[in-house]
Amino acid sequence: MLSQAHHSILVSTPGQGFTDLTRKVAHWLGQIGADAGLLTLFVRHTSASLTIQENADPDVQRDLIEALDRAAPRSHPYHHSLEGPDDMPAHIRAMLTATSLAIPVLGAKMVLGRWQAIYLIEHRDQRHEREIALQFLGTFKA
Amino acid sequence: MLSQAHHSILVSTPGQGFTDLTRKVAHWLGQIGADAGLLTLFVRHTSASLTIQENADPDVQRDLIEALDRAAPRSHPYHHSLEGPDDMPAHIRAMLTATSLAIPVLGAKMVLGRWQAIYLIEHRDQRHEREIALQFLGTFKA
Amino acid sequence: MLSQAHHSILVSTPGQGFTDLTRKVAHWLGQIGADAGLLTLFVRHTSASLTIQENADPDVQRDLIEALDRAAPRSHPYHHSLEGPDDMPAHIRAMLTATSLAIPVLGAKMVLGRWQAIYLIEHRDQRHEREIALQFLGTFKA
Repeated sequence: MLSQAHHSILVSTPGQGFTDLTRKVAHWLGQIGADAGLLTLFVRHTSASLTIQENADPDVQRDLIEALDRAAPRSHPYHHSLEGPDDMPAHIRAMLTATSLAIPVLGAKMVLGRWQAIYLIEHRDQRHEREIALQFLGTFKA
Repeated sequence: MLSQAHHSILVSTPGQGFTDLTRKVAHWLGQIGADAGLLTLFVRHTSASLTIQENADPDVQRDLIEALDRAAPRSHPYHHSLEGPDDMPAHIRAMLTATSLAIPVLGAKMVLGRWQAIYLIEHRDQRHEREIALQFLGTFKA
Repeated sequence: MLSQAHHSILVSTPGQGFTDLTRKVAHWLGQIGADAGLLTLFVRHTSASLTIQENADPDVQRDLIEALDRAAPRSHPYHHSLEGPDDMPAHIRAMLTATSLAIPVLGAKMVLGRWQAIYLIEHRDQRHEREIALQFLGTFKA
């Protein structure tokens, strides 16, 4: 019998950069006894976003951040500038990455590949408190 | 008991730009009595796409469109040019944004953050009729 | 009554380029007798990704690959270079496209538009064996 569970996790970001959510998300799936189904992650912000990326070499994250910087340079004369020079680039970088992710769950585990981790990307300069909504839809262990 | 509902919304776009779908989508969820579950949006085109972005300052949308223009400039000598100079840039901009979005629904409401709206992005110059498939999977109010 | 099915498909990629997954995915939905619901695709790698794009003119794929090359040029002096000059650009291109896709299924068919096909994008130079997890959540034909 399929059923569902909802949750929300709060993340304090250190300013621009990656925060690994994998362990927190796996922990919640364990707590609720998720067995097989579909996990959805949804970030409730427009200047932070989600990605699934390499979990091994931290230099990968540096290069990803720098690539997003080049895709939406801070120096560009944006129309929207009221919220500071880091705000409009943050919206663009969020648009180019993911607001929602869908991950199948099988045998009580997300089907992540060996090198995959789930990251929240903070695109603003300052620390922020970010909220990610989680939903699991599937079967639960008895 | 989980169940599902499907729907499709048609949007007449004004040519390149953003169309806010939030109200139409929320209206449908209200009509079917969606309570808790997962909403999926899927755009049935390859030169229009979806994004969740800021709903406050319209300048944000201007800047987002201009950023997509820079990411896929119209002036580039593309191989695929039969369908006009705006077609290939439109496919690239669609690839860099979203074809599908997943949004958890809780307490009969999408878990959108305060500043989030759901947009269809038209990437072609001309007006188009675009179709977005909606699906809700979850519980319904009695 | 809603139920679910999981599967995994393996794709041997030819090095950088697009592989059309549409037929394999539709075949699996037929095999399991999927009727109405939600299909999720999830690529278990960080240097290959998914997109839904035009299925008609092969030049579109050439232009999409070239656009991804420009977005993450191979010549850039990346910090992460241990795995070869094509590895870091591959991660960036994966981040800018999709790791997961959600496609509603109705009347035993994915609601793809007429011109839409599902592609795996290989971002590395060499051939790779790639795995895509599939999940269907919905109703099945009797």
